[in-house]
Amino acid sequence: MILSWVDGQPADGLPVHDRGLAYGDGLFETIKVVNGRPELLDRHLDRLALGCERFAISNDLAALHSQIIAFSAALGDGVAKLVLTRGDGKRGYGPPAVCRPRIILMAAPLPDYPAEHFEKGVCLYPCATRLAEQPALAGLKHLNRLEQVLARAEWQDSAFAEGLMRDTSGRVVEAVFSNLFIVNSDVLLTPSIERCGVAGVMRGELLERARQAGVETQVCDITLGQLLGAEEVFVCNSLYGIWPVRQLETRVWPVGPLTRKLQRLVADLSSNT
Amino acid sequence: MILSWVDGQPADGLPVHDRGLAYGDGLFETIKVVNGRPELLDRHLDRLALGCERFAISNDLAALHSQIIAFSAALGDGVAKLVLTRGDGKRGYGPPAVCRPRIILMAAPLPDYPAEHFEKGVCLYPCATRLAEQPALAGLKHLNRLEQVLARAEWQDSAFAEGLMRDTSGRVVEAVFSNLFIVNSDVLLTPSIERCGVAGVMRGELLERARQAGVETQVCDITLGQLLGAEEVFVCNSLYGIWPVRQLETRVWPVGPLTRKLQRLVADLSSNT
Repeated sequence: MILSWVDGQPADGLPVHDRGLAYGDGLFETIKVVNGRPELLDRHLDRLALGCERFAISNDLAALHSQIIAFSAALGDGVAKLVLTRGDGKRGYGPPAVCRPRIILMAAPLPDYPAEHFEKGVCLYPCATRLAEQPALAGLKHLNRLEQVLARAEWQDSAFAEGLMRDTSGRVVEAVFSNLFIVNSDVLLTPSIERCGVAGVMRGELLERARQAGVETQVCDITLGQLLGAEEVFVCNSLYGIWPVRQLETRVWPVGPLTRKLQRLVADLSSNT
Repeated sequence: MILSWVDGQPADGLPVHDRGLAYGDGLFETIKVVNGRPELLDRHLDRLALGCERFAISNDLAALHSQIIAFSAALGDGVAKLVLTRGDGKRGYGPPAVCRPRIILMAAPLPDYPAEHFEKGVCLYPCATRLAEQPALAGLKHLNRLEQVLARAEWQDSAFAEGLMRDTSGRVVEAVFSNLFIVNSDVLLTPSIERCGVAGVMRGELLERARQAGVETQVCDITLGQLLGAEEVFVCNSLYGIWPVRQLETRVWPVGPLTRKLQRLVADLSSNT
């Protein structure tokens, strides 16, 4: 499967002068496609629109929406990765007065994760790479991802399905390609992403569905001690849903009841979008 | 002038699956070329090699050196921008087990800065965008440059030739596309770049030449108060050399004697590399 589109046309290359390459000047979304339909598309587009606004990248969201729909239909089942860059530029950081953003869509197979991750949970690798605190970029899924690249390169042992990332002050923030939640006394908590971290679409969907189901939720700072003391821990993203966390260093957790309930709550995404 | 090479061959495109686009997973160098010869090439290659080591990107520096020499000869006079990425990857942050780095060389004209910048000095725009503190990336000229893009977009008024950047703790670090120095009691000081900032090749060359000329130098943390209280201030990079700073907000400086001396000290770069 090597389907890719550039600006709506089948293509597998882009100009060397694209600012996405030069500076990571752009955003991306990783969209699960099932039966030709993109899941959680509105949330993906909302995050992208927020990023465009913060970076002052012009965009035509209606056209983008149409492209993703058409690409997903062509893809069938898989992952549609969307990259939106500021487009071509000359040398120098300053954005061109008139810029023509570039839209790249790339297909990949759905990841082949072991069913055990979902059923029994995963071990988290304790990453040494920290997330820098940068409110101007926090929350966005932008193209400056060296911290995640360095963190993911820290382990090769497949015993670890994900890695825990903390910020430079030591707070728990997220996992390398997932958001993180903890449960304490029936309250669902997830770290604030005001300073760093990604506002995952599954994180947003989960917070909304949990509240609708009567679960109390809190978005707040979480220390490593709070994480280790939590009754339940899980990670989530838009491709795999929810994986319970069963181990971090010497701390071991059983799969908790709220984690199981939330897994069921987001099992039917494709029928709702 | 639209000369560009990819992996040593004339080309103006690269695959959409390059990790430089996906994550900013790579490094760059901006090299001044005069009469077909790249200036400060050893320093550029040393910084690139350090980046490759920190990111575990394999590289063949001898081959890279040959490519830059050949590209510079073809260019004549201008700027050779080198981008080195980790090469193609599949979806996911983890670097491929075997990666084949990609080398992109792009030509641009020498920037046409007003002579006044060099002679009378420049005004600095006080950027609101701060540099996040991330020791894992500090010093390197990597492809994650959204902070610089956002900072440079803060002003359009050509009265400001550069912008001052501070870190999230308020320390003075550098300018958007330059390093910064201050002079106090005949001592030359420049901010530490252990937490953030770029180890500019001109910064390195200047520190070495100043020491050789008997000037005391210090690399240390510098507060905004120290900057405003300094006797002389200047910015530097490998393309324009040294620009005196003549104004930051309400503070005005004359062009100082050490700044003038250092301008002369680095006037002859092309004959020494």
